[in-house]
Amino acid sequence: MNEDARWLDAAAGLAGRARPLSRPNPAVGAIVVANGTVVGRGWTQPGGRPHAEAVALEMAGNAARGATLYVTLEPCAHRSERGPACADLIVGSGLARVVAGSQDPDPRTAGAGFARIESAGIDVTVMDSALCKKSLAGYLMQRRKGRPEVTLKLATSLDGCIALTSGESRWITGAPARAHAHALRAKSDAILVGGETLRQDDPRLDVRLPGLGDRSPARFVLTGKSPPDGFVGLSSPGGIRDLPDIQYLLVEGGAGTAASFLQDDLVDTIILYRAPVVIGEGRPCIADLGLDNLAAAHGKWRLRRSQALGSDLLEVYSRTPCSQA
Amino acid sequence: MNEDARWLDAAAGLAGRARPLSRPNPAVGAIVVANGTVVGRGWTQPGGRPHAEAVALEMAGNAARGATLYVTLEPCAHRSERGPACADLIVGSGLARVVAGSQDPDPRTAGAGFARIESAGIDVTVMDSALCKKSLAGYLMQRRKGRPEVTLKLATSLDGCIALTSGESRWITGAPARAHAHALRAKSDAILVGGETLRQDDPRLDVRLPGLGDRSPARFVLTGKSPPDGFVGLSSPGGIRDLPDIQYLLVEGGAGTAASFLQDDLVDTIILYRAPVVIGEGRPCIADLGLDNLAAAHGKWRLRRSQALGSDLLEVYSRTPCSQA
Repeated sequence: MNEDARWLDAAAGLAGRARPLSRPNPAVGAIVVANGTVVGRGWTQPGGRPHAEAVALEMAGNAARGATLYVTLEPCAHRSERGPACADLIVGSGLARVVAGSQDPDPRTAGAGFARIESAGIDVTVMDSALCKKSLAGYLMQRRKGRPEVTLKLATSLDGCIALTSGESRWITGAPARAHAHALRAKSDAILVGGETLRQDDPRLDVRLPGLGDRSPARFVLTGKSPPDGFVGLSSPGGIRDLPDIQYLLVEGGAGTAASFLQDDLVDTIILYRAPVVIGEGRPCIADLGLDNLAAAHGKWRLRRSQALGSDLLEVYSRTPCSQA
Repeated sequence: MNEDARWLDAAAGLAGRARPLSRPNPAVGAIVVANGTVVGRGWTQPGGRPHAEAVALEMAGNAARGATLYVTLEPCAHRSERGPACADLIVGSGLARVVAGSQDPDPRTAGAGFARIESAGIDVTVMDSALCKKSLAGYLMQRRKGRPEVTLKLATSLDGCIALTSGESRWITGAPARAHAHALRAKSDAILVGGETLRQDDPRLDVRLPGLGDRSPARFVLTGKSPPDGFVGLSSPGGIRDLPDIQYLLVEGGAGTAASFLQDDLVDTIILYRAPVVIGEGRPCIADLGLDNLAAAHGKWRLRRSQALGSDLLEVYSRTPCSQA
């Protein structure tokens, strides 16, 4: 991996700090490097402004002259009443070079940012960076498919149950797995549960981690009825196509809701927390999908990683490229 | 870890080569070390004779004089028409020292082997070696509990199903996982399936790995009816208490059989092969256990390891010490 790719990966790491509070803007990371040394860095600030580039360039000051800016997304070309276009800031910064991890599909920028920077004599390199794209997944999904990036989260016994037949489900997983799930909520713009789960479990769906209480995401419920206070109702999974400000949606079950999203091919990542307990014919984690042959089930998912969380196991499955909706 | 422990671990590794063909004898490994060099090694031969120590000492010949014998189990003190007692062989070998990984619970030996060796002026060290005990698990289980070591093997979708509702189950997992499962059979003395699985799937239950066809284990079926040709019938899981020559039993399902063995607390290890496919309310991998509260399910199992097998995931759960039957 060359040096440019390494700096872009570092910028993608910084971008993670902007998620999810940058909404409705993309979570972007930027690093200014002069002679192999970081002289500025930044990420999109809460509410979307200032942009990552503006923060990094302000930190760099005069040290930006002749330096290289690494940024996860094409700098914006459109001015707004909320701040200057990043392309203009860059032109005035004295930077020698810009390396970006992806082009911005926003039609107001879409290549125009790079063009303005190049026309000022600044060298532009656009690399195809997997980490940059991953860090922008929710933004890119909205731009390309008009819906949020969807993660389905399930906590099961080793035999795949989310509850006893009685409905008892607290707790199957241990404290480290539950804390991990709260961190997942903290990175999401919204959480969704099914109406039955809401009635039976009355989940708080907030972020119970020190210092992250303000991250508690918007709450959605999949229901044909009117939603309770504090919840937005969606009558079908397809309703997520009308949520332009939601980049990351976390679907927390139950089994019927999980099946609905899977059947509509609206799940990008499955996160399973699996506890070392055997339940034996409790409630399955995913309801009927109408699957009538095994061949149709294969090739859709890939195990991306697994790791221990206390005595539980975390498994992350991602949609395979060929199954992209 | 000291040098003795490392040699014992190596002997435990050799013992694995004796399994399962050493039956009805324990699978033992032995190494003769002189001045830090291996001068002899052996493992219990098919049918149980010669013993590991006899093989290793024969290979060492005169090099055994003044050397150390590392052996996973206490050398036998009882002569039989099938061969001399290993303790006597050792006394005549000129060995200076014997290091063993466990004492033999067989009442014909049980300390008498060590005593005879020590009385000849040979130094004896008995270490508490976890790997040695693990390599003897089936033998020790028979001696202590009067039953085989039981492994429950299940192959499921990521949501814990072993088949579609229609019964279709070939194949959920991929070729690497299925080859691993055949290697598991090759290390077992017997395989057991439920009567319903036998009727529906008509499994061959043999070892389909090159060169290991002769390892195909004895076949048992859990059924109240008369078993088909080639199968031994057990009417309940407790019937495994009457199988003294079976050290390692592999239970391959289905869900009802898995539940029966779990309910009777007769499972020591659970091996799960998990494919990256979602089935959604297919057939659960474990039938009803009569569990009425979650607390009762906790603390019984520990995830010992997980590893990728092709695109599938292997998970090995072992009984926790406090749940030992």
